[in-house]
Amino acid sequence: MMLEAVYHRPKQNWAYAYDKQTIHLRLRTKRNDCSQVEAIVGDKYTWKSTVETIPMRIFAQDELFDYWETSVIPPYRRLRYAFQLVDAKTEQNIIMTERGFVEELPEDPNSFFDFPFINPIDVFEPPAWVKDAVFYQIFPERFANGDPSISPDNVEPWGGKPTPKNYFGGDLQGVIDHLDHIAELGINAIYFTPLFEATTNHKYDTQDYLKVDPHFGTNEKLKELVEACHARGIRVLLDAVFNHSGKTFPPFVDAQKNGQQSKYADWFHVRSWPLEVVDGIPTYDTFAFEPLMPKLNTEHPEVKEYLFKVARYWIEEIGVDGWRLDVANEVDHQFWREFRKVVKDVNPDAYILGEVWHDSIMWLQGDQFDAVMNYPFTNAVLDFFGHQTLTAEAFTHAIGHQLAAYSQQVTETAFNLLDSHDTPRLLTICDSNESAMKLAALFQLTYPGTPCIYYGDEVGIDGGGDPDCRKCMVWEPEQQNTDLLAFYKEAIALRHRHEALRSSDIRFVHAGRDASDGTLVYERREGSQRLLIAMNARSTETDFPLQVEQATKWTTLWEHGNAQLIATATKQQDKLMLSLPAYSFIVLQAEA
Amino acid sequence: MMLEAVYHRPKQNWAYAYDKQTIHLRLRTKRNDCSQVEAIVGDKYTWKSTVETIPMRIFAQDELFDYWETSVIPPYRRLRYAFQLVDAKTEQNIIMTERGFVEELPEDPNSFFDFPFINPIDVFEPPAWVKDAVFYQIFPERFANGDPSISPDNVEPWGGKPTPKNYFGGDLQGVIDHLDHIAELGINAIYFTPLFEATTNHKYDTQDYLKVDPHFGTNEKLKELVEACHARGIRVLLDAVFNHSGKTFPPFVDAQKNGQQSKYADWFHVRSWPLEVVDGIPTYDTFAFEPLMPKLNTEHPEVKEYLFKVARYWIEEIGVDGWRLDVANEVDHQFWREFRKVVKDVNPDAYILGEVWHDSIMWLQGDQFDAVMNYPFTNAVLDFFGHQTLTAEAFTHAIGHQLAAYSQQVTETAFNLLDSHDTPRLLTICDSNESAMKLAALFQLTYPGTPCIYYGDEVGIDGGGDPDCRKCMVWEPEQQNTDLLAFYKEAIALRHRHEALRSSDIRFVHAGRDASDGTLVYERREGSQRLLIAMNARSTETDFPLQVEQATKWTTLWEHGNAQLIATATKQQDKLMLSLPAYSFIVLQAEA
Repeated sequence: MMLEAVYHRPKQNWAYAYDKQTIHLRLRTKRNDCSQVEAIVGDKYTWKSTVETIPMRIFAQDELFDYWETSVIPPYRRLRYAFQLVDAKTEQNIIMTERGFVEELPEDPNSFFDFPFINPIDVFEPPAWVKDAVFYQIFPERFANGDPSISPDNVEPWGGKPTPKNYFGGDLQGVIDHLDHIAELGINAIYFTPLFEATTNHKYDTQDYLKVDPHFGTNEKLKELVEACHARGIRVLLDAVFNHSGKTFPPFVDAQKNGQQSKYADWFHVRSWPLEVVDGIPTYDTFAFEPLMPKLNTEHPEVKEYLFKVARYWIEEIGVDGWRLDVANEVDHQFWREFRKVVKDVNPDAYILGEVWHDSIMWLQGDQFDAVMNYPFTNAVLDFFGHQTLTAEAFTHAIGHQLAAYSQQVTETAFNLLDSHDTPRLLTICDSNESAMKLAALFQLTYPGTPCIYYGDEVGIDGGGDPDCRKCMVWEPEQQNTDLLAFYKEAIALRHRHEALRSSDIRFVHAGRDASDGTLVYERREGSQRLLIAMNARSTETDFPLQVEQATKWTTLWEHGNAQLIATATKQQDKLMLSLPAYSFIVLQAEA
Repeated sequence: MMLEAVYHRPKQNWAYAYDKQTIHLRLRTKRNDCSQVEAIVGDKYTWKSTVETIPMRIFAQDELFDYWETSVIPPYRRLRYAFQLVDAKTEQNIIMTERGFVEELPEDPNSFFDFPFINPIDVFEPPAWVKDAVFYQIFPERFANGDPSISPDNVEPWGGKPTPKNYFGGDLQGVIDHLDHIAELGINAIYFTPLFEATTNHKYDTQDYLKVDPHFGTNEKLKELVEACHARGIRVLLDAVFNHSGKTFPPFVDAQKNGQQSKYADWFHVRSWPLEVVDGIPTYDTFAFEPLMPKLNTEHPEVKEYLFKVARYWIEEIGVDGWRLDVANEVDHQFWREFRKVVKDVNPDAYILGEVWHDSIMWLQGDQFDAVMNYPFTNAVLDFFGHQTLTAEAFTHAIGHQLAAYSQQVTETAFNLLDSHDTPRLLTICDSNESAMKLAALFQLTYPGTPCIYYGDEVGIDGGGDPDCRKCMVWEPEQQNTDLLAFYKEAIALRHRHEALRSSDIRFVHAGRDASDGTLVYERREGSQRLLIAMNARSTETDFPLQVEQATKWTTLWEHGNAQLIATATKQQDKLMLSLPAYSFIVLQAEA
């Protein structure tokens, strides 16, 4: 056994409370190195009379490792434990304790790992609605111009080419006018990029955190929009740009004017006075090196008080359902801990979503965010379906790695986007191959977590990186890709219909190993509901048998591109026969 | 290269801010698998113009792994990074990014690891005085009876056999009377087990959190004691028993009497009413299954308010310098985060020490504790010097593992005890071998962190587990082990004299591999100061040459048991010759 590969460290994703009663334990071993892993568990204060051995199962795999998991409900909310591993080759047993590897279970109870106590307040419980949500991201300046009277003076005709600084007049009335489109798509949550007064078209340089930008509408208009959304069962998430303000934010204007005498002098991170730009580098910390975006000193009590007032106002007065936090990882953890208390105090069901492009475990322990924008997921999906730089097998490894990296509740409420206002459009990443794009979206929509569709993807809008990914929404039916739109509606409806598609239980049962073999099959389960999704993400047609359990009859729920279930399993036969033409997919359901 | 062994995950002990400017990066590889490891670092927003490659060094090793470390001061407080590893056998390079192992540095900057921003408030900075402290633990009922008029009615003659329930009359006046002993020993901090009113001799069942137990004295007497300590440069730490109260704590008495109608009904964790013991199991959560110690509901706002008032009172009114937190890991993290703010608000230099016997990384991130009682250190030292179940080499592995498991600041302020009121006495663990005991204490007193001596160890008190480890202090000079006392004084003085002994830089240069070879040599460094400590923890005499740098002349600072430096290194000679009789030690210093 390769002991160097075996990993467990209490807390985080390795030993955590899944709910107020249940502890999940996980262990990592070298892939295919162990034939069996068990957890030895008991109560630390009555070890001998409570110790028992419970099996673990491999719940995820990547290129190098198997990840084992089990679930325990300890009667007194505390758990002492160790692991027993069986070498796949030698069949020898080894025991892993907190003090290392031993052959026999140690006498000293302090040698074991310890989960001290499940304190309810420490249990990470994201809002229950999130795992059933399908989000739609709107970049408001480009969604719909519903009130030309408030458009900027220099507004350009709808549908023109986006540049970093031009305007097309999108506004809140435009969103209200098109809620039918959103609702019919099956969307039940909208994430808006910033709506507050600012000088740019993207509004990431906030001037007034308590006021809707006049080119978008008014606070009252936003309230009307939120109420219209709620009436349709759609939740609304706003963008909290708290890492930095805009350059026209009055406290910054004051600090720039009055220097160290300003009463706002400590609201920013000043390296040297005056506040200016020297050789392209501001004398104050900013987002990146952007002088327009001075970094806020979120440790300052007045800054915190102000931003918490903002956080409360839009929830209490306008009714929004949560916050997406811009550049969340550059703000201090202490701020976010207090922010969480502020937000959950006014709405325990509010969703707190951080923008973090990297490993985010330290923000996802229950004390800070409910979720992050899951770019590692994005990268894996785009590399397999879009850029085609990953094989199907390597894709399953990337996904397996992510499943293992976080607790189950994080997986269940991760914000899974495939593109955004910060990235090229999905269709463009897929080299305009609509079938490939559909497979990527199908994977997203049949994966645990909350999927988010970037406005316009569903009608075939393409575009490269910023600003090209910020094109105007296409509203003329004849210019919309109705085939794509129908696909999205059906895929979203499928997700809503089948709880198994929203559960965290995903099992890869087949994945092509070479570059030309794009076949991928995975099973989704919840209770007795079982769905099998099979797809071919490359151009070579494939027929293949799939090893499944005997006597489970599978029927076709949905297919695309002439994918076919040629034969299902029977009492005598443990194989399915599938035919998967290029870029086709099929969704099967097991008969109960 | 064994890729399965390579480990890095941002934050915790792998990538952390050491101070407000400095980031430490660490990487784990299989032991002896890599000949070189470098960090590739730069600013994420100007990667190409800032990227540089910096060397890492092996700062710790255990049986399976090498642990590499480097330190970086990024100009804009943020860092993007990857690692470059050189295979010791093939000399091939491999790069580790957040997305896995690659041969070439990726183009996509999001592939790298990210340290987003050093926010000062998130930086873990324990009180500076702690790493220069030598603690003394006092179990007050057994230290000295200074005021017989307040002793319990059933007090027994000083020096009798301790039982779970008997009393000998130790009190605060007794401590005041003997501060000379403590000061002459070289102690500059005292940790008291509980002083507050309670029904037991150990006082872990608090009745009144705001009152010194009448058998110990009064609040005024404690204030007098604290002031007398401060006048001698001795700090005072009290025991905060916040996980549970005593059964006579008035809110529990009320809840027991009035049941669900009690206004304190929610102050406890009640599984079923009434509060009683059924078949040995209380109907309410307790410490272990101890009916005397009902677990407090530390999520309840009133409980928090009460306990925070307690935390403030003893610091503000009585002047204590911090808190040791009993059963700290069974209390919720949120409570401790608020507790830290409360305590640091009234005294930023207060020391917060948690009782956690296990891996404690999640409490040592800067938001909760400054340190924990370092029982993993205790276990390793006792197993090598006392039980002799570890070889010298295995001991260096256990210590190396611990050095790697925490950030440098945690190592610098860890609370390193060898025994306590909860464990057998050091002398007894050493099977009454005073020489072995001296070596264990020498290691403790020349190791990073803050050492703590359990009252009476220094005069030769022995004893098994509780209650035998709670014997009365021996005050008659003729009954004290003066040789041991002289040793402790000298070892503590040595620590105070040499900053290198308090730094985090410890390097093992020699360790015996088999059971009979107890030789252990390690170097301690700070700036240009270098000390070499060599010892023999087994009964076989050994002479051996030690490979060191050429031309560093070493001289003897202290020796015991006829250990000898036979020859030092010279310009021509890179070896020291050492003679180490059974259980001897020698401390050498390099001439500048």
